[in-house]
Amino acid sequence: MSKNRYSDAECAAIYRAIYQRRDMRHFLPDPIAPELFLRLLNAAHHAPSVGFMQPWRFVRISCPDLRTAIHGLVEQERLLTAQALNEREDEFMKLKVEGILECPIVLVAALCEQRNQHVFGRRTLPEMDLASLACAIQNMWLVARAEGIGLGWVSMFDPVALKTLLHMPEDSQPFAVLCLGHVAEFYDKPMLEQQQWAERKDFNDLLFENVWNMPCR
Amino acid sequence: MSKNRYSDAECAAIYRAIYQRRDMRHFLPDPIAPELFLRLLNAAHHAPSVGFMQPWRFVRISCPDLRTAIHGLVEQERLLTAQALNEREDEFMKLKVEGILECPIVLVAALCEQRNQHVFGRRTLPEMDLASLACAIQNMWLVARAEGIGLGWVSMFDPVALKTLLHMPEDSQPFAVLCLGHVAEFYDKPMLEQQQWAERKDFNDLLFENVWNMPCR
Repeated sequence: MSKNRYSDAECAAIYRAIYQRRDMRHFLPDPIAPELFLRLLNAAHHAPSVGFMQPWRFVRISCPDLRTAIHGLVEQERLLTAQALNEREDEFMKLKVEGILECPIVLVAALCEQRNQHVFGRRTLPEMDLASLACAIQNMWLVARAEGIGLGWVSMFDPVALKTLLHMPEDSQPFAVLCLGHVAEFYDKPMLEQQQWAERKDFNDLLFENVWNMPCR
Repeated sequence: MSKNRYSDAECAAIYRAIYQRRDMRHFLPDPIAPELFLRLLNAAHHAPSVGFMQPWRFVRISCPDLRTAIHGLVEQERLLTAQALNEREDEFMKLKVEGILECPIVLVAALCEQRNQHVFGRRTLPEMDLASLACAIQNMWLVARAEGIGLGWVSMFDPVALKTLLHMPEDSQPFAVLCLGHVAEFYDKPMLEQQQWAERKDFNDLLFENVWNMPCR
């Protein structure tokens, strides 16, 4: 065992957060304490980033009209998504996909402008900036779970329309409307699993050895 | 305080992993115990994914020739990146950017084929699948840190060439060569910060309110 290993209790806490984290769509109206909100943001800011570029930006939505407008964008895209799903349209329309109007904090997570100045680790894979943003959100998600705060990541919106709403530069890109708030309880399983939208895959089918689709011994 | 909050000690453990996680490039040759490796993979598999699509796939590289070939791809791209960096070329060439030949486990993380069947949360943002893969890698990274295992994410390679090497389908996409292994010690700070490649930004400059670039009160 490594001398660098944390205690068993510490390891268990980290696994616990990973297994109990949920994409939440139901929130209580209670406010989030400002110092707790700062802890969540700081955890996000300590994510890895390609070439240490820290491409993440967060826009807190405190204006009620703006929140309503963002909800409208999501509702519009929800209907378009439903249509695109064809035979699963009705099933999809029964799902609750966001809690934008109920949660105490709405945060838009985005990639900054002028990202093409950053070549390190991105020359052949420019999308690595999004990977960094996602790691930041995952950090926030895990500490939020530990702090008893629910987080929901909504990606159903027209990014160009959202950019316009927030006066974002042309070369920036919003990727998430994050809903944050206290919750009555966390779902036992992912909501889409509970509602039988999809099942968890068997991990053995996702791990290969040397060659794609070759099962790992 | 929320009744859903973990104990102070549990919260502290999670923050500790987030603040002490590093992108590692120096490894010890000691093997990783198989059951520990499985724990890391399982943590990855419990990441959030858009529409619960679980787009992540992992290819373990056990064949020495294949590992050497992957290292060759990265070395090729390292030189091309250096050239693209112009005046920072020399500074970049001094950095150690990977430990592919030293680490006990090399894992290629990729997005699966036939992803365009998944519309939920991706109609306007198809790149959300990469965000899910990144969350999976971040989960693995955090538990690896707690377990005393270093992880390095290498994104310097030609993805088409890597796809060919691993016999991957046309519509799949590799995003990471992950190096995993025990380490003598974890870097105190991100290596790119230690080596003064870039500085950590002030988080206050990354948080806006309602309007892009508007400081948050």
